Amino acid sequence: MRQVGIVGVGHTKFGKWEGTFLELITQAALQAMDDAGAKTGKDNVIDQVFVASMGAGMLNRISGSASALVDTLNIRPAMAECIENGPASGASAIKLGYMAIASGVCDCVLVVGGEQMRVVSGWEATDFVATMLHPTGEYPYGLTLPSFAGMFTRLRFEKYGETSEDLARISVKNHDNATHNPCAHIQRKVKLERISDPRYVDATSPMVADPLRQFDMCPVSDGAAAVLLVAKDKQEELGFGHKTFARIAGIASATDTHYVADRADPTELLAVRTAAERAYQMAGMGPEDIDCAELHDAFLILELAESEECGLFPKGEAHLAVRRGETEIGGRIPINTSGGLKAKGHPLGATGVSQVVELVRQVRGEAEGRQVEGARTGLAVNFGGFGNNVVATIVTTK
Amino acid sequence: MRQVGIVGVGHTKFGKWEGTFLELITQAALQAMDDAGAKTGKDNVIDQVFVASMGAGMLNRISGSASALVDTLNIRPAMAECIENGPASGASAIKLGYMAIASGVCDCVLVVGGEQMRVVSGWEATDFVATMLHPTGEYPYGLTLPSFAGMFTRLRFEKYGETSEDLARISVKNHDNATHNPCAHIQRKVKLERISDPRYVDATSPMVADPLRQFDMCPVSDGAAAVLLVAKDKQEELGFGHKTFARIAGIASATDTHYVADRADPTELLAVRTAAERAYQMAGMGPEDIDCAELHDAFLILELAESEECGLFPKGEAHLAVRRGETEIGGRIPINTSGGLKAKGHPLGATGVSQVVELVRQVRGEAEGRQVEGARTGLAVNFGGFGNNVVATIVTTK
Repeated sequence: MRQVGIVGVGHTKFGKWEGTFLELITQAALQAMDDAGAKTGKDNVIDQVFVASMGAGMLNRISGSASALVDTLNIRPAMAECIENGPASGASAIKLGYMAIASGVCDCVLVVGGEQMRVVSGWEATDFVATMLHPTGEYPYGLTLPSFAGMFTRLRFEKYGETSEDLARISVKNHDNATHNPCAHIQRKVKLERISDPRYVDATSPMVADPLRQFDMCPVSDGAAAVLLVAKDKQEELGFGHKTFARIAGIASATDTHYVADRADPTELLAVRTAAERAYQMAGMGPEDIDCAELHDAFLILELAESEECGLFPKGEAHLAVRRGETEIGGRIPINTSGGLKAKGHPLGATGVSQVVELVRQVRGEAEGRQVEGARTGLAVNFGGFGNNVVATIVTTK
Repeated sequence: MRQVGIVGVGHTKFGKWEGTFLELITQAALQAMDDAGAKTGKDNVIDQVFVASMGAGMLNRISGSASALVDTLNIRPAMAECIENGPASGASAIKLGYMAIASGVCDCVLVVGGEQMRVVSGWEATDFVATMLHPTGEYPYGLTLPSFAGMFTRLRFEKYGETSEDLARISVKNHDNATHNPCAHIQRKVKLERISDPRYVDATSPMVADPLRQFDMCPVSDGAAAVLLVAKDKQEELGFGHKTFARIAGIASATDTHYVADRADPTELLAVRTAAERAYQMAGMGPEDIDCAELHDAFLILELAESEECGLFPKGEAHLAVRRGETEIGGRIPINTSGGLKAKGHPLGATGVSQVVELVRQVRGEAEGRQVEGARTGLAVNFGGFGNNVVATIVTTK
């Protein structure tokens, strides 16, 4: 199969975006194009643009934003589509970009993920997010993502002996990492005792969905991220020869039951496991080849569960590795060096692209202040619904 | 490049759907799978599902519907994404299905387009549709699709001498064709004098956007359509050897300025021309190879304009061909044998898939009552925004 890789990355500051959705995705797109040295107008070489967003329609009342972006970027008549797969929209769009180039139809594809979700807050934000649950079996009954995550956490705690303090440790780690990421939403350290000591915790990190507290889950963020994909055999000809080729060695997705209640064992994340297995197989790699990982820690329990489903740790042992500091920068397998969804923020459609941007920065050796020494290969897991649709991506310079 | 073709088609009755959105897309999907003989559960061979919809989020408050569909169809862990490109979402999804197979990542892809838009009506429907206009430069100012179509019609009338009666002729033709299509929304003939005679017309076909009247534009419909794509080299092995392979010889899209006001000549539909040229080039074909065409007649003037931009007629002469009956079934180049968007209906995300379903029925010789004799090759044009993003598809059994 044709080799496909990334030669440009862009990433807005996550947090509150004061402009329009179109301006948001344009900023990330232009950064990625500038990074790669991509030109516009008659010199444009981008064949296809994918915009990933879950809420452009529901929250921002926009359809066809990919076409508007092409026009704004002055790269007409490039092809353009919008991709939606809940919070995994971003990685899905990269997967489709990969296919577009591997097929030979395109040589160069721009993928932009963006979400402007802080136009809603409180129950409206919770309700918006809940639209990714089953449209007839879950959402209409008022089920929410935190409620599933709380149940999932409780079941895992009972099964594997994880504790709330383990989650707090991950929180501390991801907040630490985020202080070195200028694009992170929350660039502030937290102290373990402040979010786990029973004397303070009800005030500092109130209960949301028992046993999950506020600091066990991600904030609501606006933001956008972009990657420019190119075929290896066209990199030089299209003018990107000077850039590191961060090869997409493996990219795959998988679905699990949409009804969470239908799962034989609700503590298993089958779609994560299957997507990761497929990505490893495509890459001809295994967990032992991964130098750093960006995992979808919308709820911190997911960082633990995903790291196990991806084979980075044996089942039920990830929290022990966390206690030993193995997932910190400098540890055996650093996880969420970007700050993760927890501290970097989680603009839904942007997240999958943002994760891959972080991997590219790591394998390029450009992750200033949070660089994993000698990182050559990274894994990203982008998690849709409550695990009903998951995308795994492996980026490498090997 | 790997050959990709269609071995199964499905199509719900367009009109008012009383069930849920998920039931709607499921019905079309199952029809396409049954048509091809595709199995489920352990015997599933579908690698990827694409669901095309413009309003699943905005109108039905659903995200990730493709994952829900995979679960409902019992074809887990098939990959799944939703595709949005305004009213061209359907053909966009087929394009991505083509790429998925041509890349070698997938061998079999199910594409379903669906829209349940009759949950809104009147100004709410107009406003929903208008979200496909420029998100900052057009939509916020209250511009609507009929207003652009009215302007476009007026300019063309002045330039080429087309008349309201020419549009009425197309209306009569498409309504005639729809009476032979059991899936059409409106299966009723109209008489030319009823919708063009000044004595009746204000009552029978009231003015909407001068010179466009009600019978010059499509109704608001619910509906879904589906196609099952497979690689030629896997057709036999996957169990579809008994079905006609309706090959996708060419499929391509193109964008034009999103701001209609930015177009040098607003009577030109550059994206249609470019998409068609690209599709012809990919197919190694030209307009002379086309036996029948499904054109995007959301407004009847578009059927004329698109037929010219695709090279079926010289510029400014399509209405003369209509007057001579050349676009009727039995004519030189029958257009919209399905009834077109005008009479078959236009559930936005379904339309592009529905057009290709009609081409497959024609090239298979299964278009009962409306069959174009000896049809081997068909062209579809699916039009997004006011021509800002257009997909052209060529299906053939040659």
